[in-house]
Amino acid sequence: MTAGRTKLSQHVPRASFSVMSDAIQSLKGVHFVSTDQLSKEELQGLLDLSKYYKETYKAKGGLKPKPLEGDSMAMIFQKRSTRTRVSTETGIAMMGGHALFLGPSDIQLGVNESMRDTALVLSRFNSIILARVYSHNDIAELAKYATVPVINALSDLHHPLQSLADLMTLQEHFGKDLSGKTVAWVGDGNNVLHDLALGSAILGMNVNIATPAGFECNPTILAKVKELAAKHGGKVMTTSVAADAVANADVVVTDTWVSMGQEAEYAARLKAFDGYQVNKELMSKANPNAVFLHCLPRHPEEVADEVFYSPQSLVFDEAENRMWTVMAVAAAQLGKVE
Amino acid sequence: MTAGRTKLSQHVPRASFSVMSDAIQSLKGVHFVSTDQLSKEELQGLLDLSKYYKETYKAKGGLKPKPLEGDSMAMIFQKRSTRTRVSTETGIAMMGGHALFLGPSDIQLGVNESMRDTALVLSRFNSIILARVYSHNDIAELAKYATVPVINALSDLHHPLQSLADLMTLQEHFGKDLSGKTVAWVGDGNNVLHDLALGSAILGMNVNIATPAGFECNPTILAKVKELAAKHGGKVMTTSVAADAVANADVVVTDTWVSMGQEAEYAARLKAFDGYQVNKELMSKANPNAVFLHCLPRHPEEVADEVFYSPQSLVFDEAENRMWTVMAVAAAQLGKVE
Amino acid sequence: MTAGRTKLSQHVPRASFSVMSDAIQSLKGVHFVSTDQLSKEELQGLLDLSKYYKETYKAKGGLKPKPLEGDSMAMIFQKRSTRTRVSTETGIAMMGGHALFLGPSDIQLGVNESMRDTALVLSRFNSIILARVYSHNDIAELAKYATVPVINALSDLHHPLQSLADLMTLQEHFGKDLSGKTVAWVGDGNNVLHDLALGSAILGMNVNIATPAGFECNPTILAKVKELAAKHGGKVMTTSVAADAVANADVVVTDTWVSMGQEAEYAARLKAFDGYQVNKELMSKANPNAVFLHCLPRHPEEVADEVFYSPQSLVFDEAENRMWTVMAVAAAQLGKVE
Repeated sequence: MTAGRTKLSQHVPRASFSVMSDAIQSLKGVHFVSTDQLSKEELQGLLDLSKYYKETYKAKGGLKPKPLEGDSMAMIFQKRSTRTRVSTETGIAMMGGHALFLGPSDIQLGVNESMRDTALVLSRFNSIILARVYSHNDIAELAKYATVPVINALSDLHHPLQSLADLMTLQEHFGKDLSGKTVAWVGDGNNVLHDLALGSAILGMNVNIATPAGFECNPTILAKVKELAAKHGGKVMTTSVAADAVANADVVVTDTWVSMGQEAEYAARLKAFDGYQVNKELMSKANPNAVFLHCLPRHPEEVADEVFYSPQSLVFDEAENRMWTVMAVAAAQLGKVE
Repeated sequence: MTAGRTKLSQHVPRASFSVMSDAIQSLKGVHFVSTDQLSKEELQGLLDLSKYYKETYKAKGGLKPKPLEGDSMAMIFQKRSTRTRVSTETGIAMMGGHALFLGPSDIQLGVNESMRDTALVLSRFNSIILARVYSHNDIAELAKYATVPVINALSDLHHPLQSLADLMTLQEHFGKDLSGKTVAWVGDGNNVLHDLALGSAILGMNVNIATPAGFECNPTILAKVKELAAKHGGKVMTTSVAADAVANADVVVTDTWVSMGQEAEYAARLKAFDGYQVNKELMSKANPNAVFLHCLPRHPEEVADEVFYSPQSLVFDEAENRMWTVMAVAAAQLGKVE
Repeated sequence: MTAGRTKLSQHVPRASFSVMSDAIQSLKGVHFVSTDQLSKEELQGLLDLSKYYKETYKAKGGLKPKPLEGDSMAMIFQKRSTRTRVSTETGIAMMGGHALFLGPSDIQLGVNESMRDTALVLSRFNSIILARVYSHNDIAELAKYATVPVINALSDLHHPLQSLADLMTLQEHFGKDLSGKTVAWVGDGNNVLHDLALGSAILGMNVNIATPAGFECNPTILAKVKELAAKHGGKVMTTSVAADAVANADVVVTDTWVSMGQEAEYAARLKAFDGYQVNKELMSKANPNAVFLHCLPRHPEEVADEVFYSPQSLVFDEAENRMWTVMAVAAAQLGKVE
């Protein structure tokens, strides 16, 4: 993209940009499925590019790069999501591309047409396929057959876009070197935890996980987190006592206890998570300058207003960063960074 | 927007454009909630800008300004609407921006996420939030928390975008000075009437309102209409006799008797509005050159074909003008006029 | 479109482009309703333009024409369709235009608003109206009242966009001269067959049609196919024996036996189409180098995997060509070819 680069190089010294670009050129044409597929350099490269986009597009004046001009993205949503949809559609448009929203009633993945055929057909029209699904198998099927890059925008196992946004938010707050910081998860052992833990471990953070009995995270993924932590110098601990995970943490994170599709279990889940609400008292166990994250939408049961709307809470920066990070992923996959 | 202005100045003498722009620079960053928030100068400024856009974008050839390049609008629809949706999405695209359609099943305002959080999150992604809601409280909540401008695209109390389109249509037909002209409303005392009456009063028109007993308009808004009429030299009369309102009117306006969400009351409403159909006989009471307006969609019970499809009817110009006016509002709010 | 032409002429020698453009300038401002409205020159002109767009937009590097900049298309879907929606929305965006997706719950054609009013209103906002409907009468009504060009994107009688994509795919495979080749339809006598048969006849192909008793195609359209075949030198045969239609065919085509809205008849239909599955055995009756087409989505009952995913199958090229052909139709209707 000669034209794109010319514009870009007006904003960033060529040398540093080249370094950033080198780190992620390995992602060109690659499906983006889970955080543990990334090397430390690739992960940091995506975070650097995200930061670069945030600075460039938010700057008053100056030419705005349109690296995705002529590109398009099919966004398949089995599960609705305001954030994923709006951040992606807006971000892709900002880059000059076109993102199509295909809701549950627009495209019935695997119902009227096989995943294989859907993947093959969309690959003929669009440059990227982003999908938000229930079963991780659906992502795997799309990735198997698609001839263009696939982005996992949430499956029951992984949520790598959220992990990127969270780590970007933490680097904005604490600085680029997060090694030795401790992130504490307090809640359901779900997809959001999986990728946050994987990404934190890759960046050398310590990972504390508190989940109620019966709501532990996937053991295979936990093993991978421990392996990555060992490699990058961090520690991992798991517990069922929320306060133990939060003790001396730098970051406290939770998520809804009842996701879409789990409404039937509402009462049982509420009981299981008794004592897991992130409130002032729980936050008082963490480091004095600890911050709070939540991928939203948020419900009062899992986090009290006194924390959620406090200066410690970075949740709206975190939401915004969903946009800059998905832009970086798409640009890297399309090799439109340089 | 230096680039934008350069393009614009090829169409309009710099001086007149500057005047137009001065009148509405007060609207930059301001929520657009109801017509009575506008001064006469601001209202006329928006109408002038709408006219300017209509001429500029419909002109054969010539560079088309793209003042909203890089901007995006979240369009939240609790209530569906072909006109509001298509006019806004098309108009924003014409200006180089990107409008995202969020239907009732895409975003459940206040259901899975509070209005406050929705407002705060969308403000991080989008330059403007447009919302079409049931309760005016929802607009007020969005406006309270959003950190970007909000546009009320219909609530149970106000419909200021329709008022702008109606007044633009009347100025196209009668000329810019509408003072002394009489607009007669014949129908339900609803949100469309509220803002049409407020806007007409601001422009010095007389306002005649016929509503059946039990379907009168909001008394607080009526008081405001009377106050504005007194200030700007017009008169206001209310009646339950359709013919009395129409007598010597220059403009006759009605709307559906049964809006979305009121289908259960269909039979009762039809009975209450007996004698309120705008037909040739009723139009014969008005001035000979009187015109007819309707915000659409239209049903035969409230207006007969003989009027609706007659040369007196300006309804399709009125529909088209929904586009040019929402473009003006968005540009004014973003300060992208000059 | 001086600017557009300048860009275009960088790719194509001016002379040949001019010839292509001449053949279809008659389509400017014309509704695109059924294949038999096209002369042989117009049909070939659209196929040439489709091929030109495919080459131009898929070429690495080079300026990409944006002939639809400032134009918009309202896409009305009474019936959902992944292919029609994604191909059109992506293709129009590629040309610099904006396509709005209006699904069954966004716009209820003829329910809350008459077709006449809908046509008149959308004509004020959009440059083209594309509609995918149940009853062909709805297309006729839209075309009667719309003041901008209408595209039939499927009705119960016609599917001219699919016909274009199929013929483009065949010309890519067999070369531009298809005269004398035989296309065999094996399946339901439906809208897809109608336009494929009409288009094939116009290009001088022979048309073999096998449909079970009770599922024959529309007799008026069949008469038209025969008339066109006679004019252009092809032959038409109809049968209820699948193998007879396929004998010595160069192209075998089928479609789903149970379309949207026919699910209730599922069991009865399955029985009626017994023996109609396109499998290796049936394909063995065709010419050795015969190819297979299917407009998708596909179900295993009508075509076996051994054919559908074989090298004989051109179904994914065919799907892709839905995009290049709808782009050609829109450009021709808007007179934005030259």
